[in-house]
Amino acid sequence: MKWAVISTWKMSTEGNAKAAELLADNVKAGDAIVEGVTLVEDNPAYSSVGYSGLPDKDGHVTLDGGYMDGDTLKVGAVGCLEGFRSPIRVARKLSENSFNNFLVGAGAEEYARLNGFEERDNMTPETFRRYLREKDKRAELKSYDGHDTVCFIGKDVYGSLCAAVSTSGLFMKEPGRVGDSPIAGAGFYADSQIGGAGVTGVGEDCIRGTVSFRVVNKMAQGRSPQQAADETMRELSERIENLRHMSIVVLNKAGEFGVATNCVFPFVYASDECEQKLYLATWENDATVIKEIRPEDTERD
Amino acid sequence: MKWAVISTWKMSTEGNAKAAELLADNVKAGDAIVEGVTLVEDNPAYSSVGYSGLPDKDGHVTLDGGYMDGDTLKVGAVGCLEGFRSPIRVARKLSENSFNNFLVGAGAEEYARLNGFEERDNMTPETFRRYLREKDKRAELKSYDGHDTVCFIGKDVYGSLCAAVSTSGLFMKEPGRVGDSPIAGAGFYADSQIGGAGVTGVGEDCIRGTVSFRVVNKMAQGRSPQQAADETMRELSERIENLRHMSIVVLNKAGEFGVATNCVFPFVYASDECEQKLYLATWENDATVIKEIRPEDTERD
Repeated sequence: MKWAVISTWKMSTEGNAKAAELLADNVKAGDAIVEGVTLVEDNPAYSSVGYSGLPDKDGHVTLDGGYMDGDTLKVGAVGCLEGFRSPIRVARKLSENSFNNFLVGAGAEEYARLNGFEERDNMTPETFRRYLREKDKRAELKSYDGHDTVCFIGKDVYGSLCAAVSTSGLFMKEPGRVGDSPIAGAGFYADSQIGGAGVTGVGEDCIRGTVSFRVVNKMAQGRSPQQAADETMRELSERIENLRHMSIVVLNKAGEFGVATNCVFPFVYASDECEQKLYLATWENDATVIKEIRPEDTERD
Repeated sequence: MKWAVISTWKMSTEGNAKAAELLADNVKAGDAIVEGVTLVEDNPAYSSVGYSGLPDKDGHVTLDGGYMDGDTLKVGAVGCLEGFRSPIRVARKLSENSFNNFLVGAGAEEYARLNGFEERDNMTPETFRRYLREKDKRAELKSYDGHDTVCFIGKDVYGSLCAAVSTSGLFMKEPGRVGDSPIAGAGFYADSQIGGAGVTGVGEDCIRGTVSFRVVNKMAQGRSPQQAADETMRELSERIENLRHMSIVVLNKAGEFGVATNCVFPFVYASDECEQKLYLATWENDATVIKEIRPEDTERD
């Protein structure tokens, strides 16, 4: 394939279409997928990424983002960034540095401010109401109460692969909590000579498994994207006690995709050989089952 | 071997001896190596870890630490933690959580305070003078101006492996900068069924290479610790343009060690079969050369 792009969750549909359009127009993978992720970040309908992201237990919407250039293996990342529009854009800019590629908290905010990134209060009235409801319940944190990370893996006509990830992390998380999304190797990895992977799910478990590098490394050893994803899911299900929700999207350097998941997981894929499609992945009998669906076939964003 | 412990840099000598003493006394690997790391953190003579750690460009001593339990793959980590005595102890405590295992900045500090961890201003008069000299020079950040991370990998008599890492990170780093030390897969990894690894060097490059998981994974495929370390160093030297300083310590589940480095690198190893020794590793003709030395044979802490 000349170009291809895969992205997590139904909410990535418009962003995926935008990235596909750019890739078809010979735009570089990094530029294309950052545009795609930004569309998800900007959409208040999606409550786990960027604008209207889910707050921590103190009511702060703090965002994580990570970017990797598969040509150079350069990484940029932000953790616990509050008050800015687009963590993925900040992460990408940081990937250009020689040092100081991963910034967190107040330092990341100072960097974003000094570098002219657009500020934005990412708390929306609806998110705030949801926060207050949850706070009133004082409920125990449940394992899937909102951590739908958006990951894009793109391959361009120049043969380059890139990964871009953005999330508000776990709903009602502890202040300062950082998940797997800004962590290269865990939340994302891309090597243009092999392939790329991105993960959504319980970040704590994704970190324990170094999931994305694990997948890419299996492709380096000759596995197809689907084999690499399924093997990784089996391996971690066996190795980590009570492994929680985890979904993996994979793209190899040929532009072929693979997906593994232990929950109901919609994702989006497009390439020059295959127009954009929405798929639903489920885990059945130790392997991932993937079928094409219509948007109305799933309630999961 | 019944037990074994490897640690980075000459500065880990006393801590390694303490960990060895505890391991010989049937103490668990996690407890033993956290004690070892704490001794390095507490010693003001070592200017890149804990007390007297090197500050960021604004003069704040912010610390990173990571801990991994190789039995459960549970990870705890702190990034950019200011004002506390022992990042490794906070990291270890966080590893017991079900969620929120990685905390950064103000959130990490709030957690440490609420959980009764000892507060400490880690800036010493000598470090402050060094900071002022550097600031006056307004020099370009050089690649090895102080980022001597202490990593311990320990194996106990119960067959468990753990990894523990602590550092103040790059001298004159950007505020909020987090390196590879709190990042499982990059700065450390431990799997009791295979082995463990830890890295010291330019954190940004260690992140790009997902170095520690890469090494452990090679052992899973049958390589010895030394083969795994050397192969990883060769692979990354080839793949990452102008790879900067990087030194890797490895221990397999049998307690055998391996080390690779692309610079002059002292390290310490002890086991029930071999009393504590200080070694010097160098990189010659595409492989690591290791020889036993006396403390006075190297000026590198």
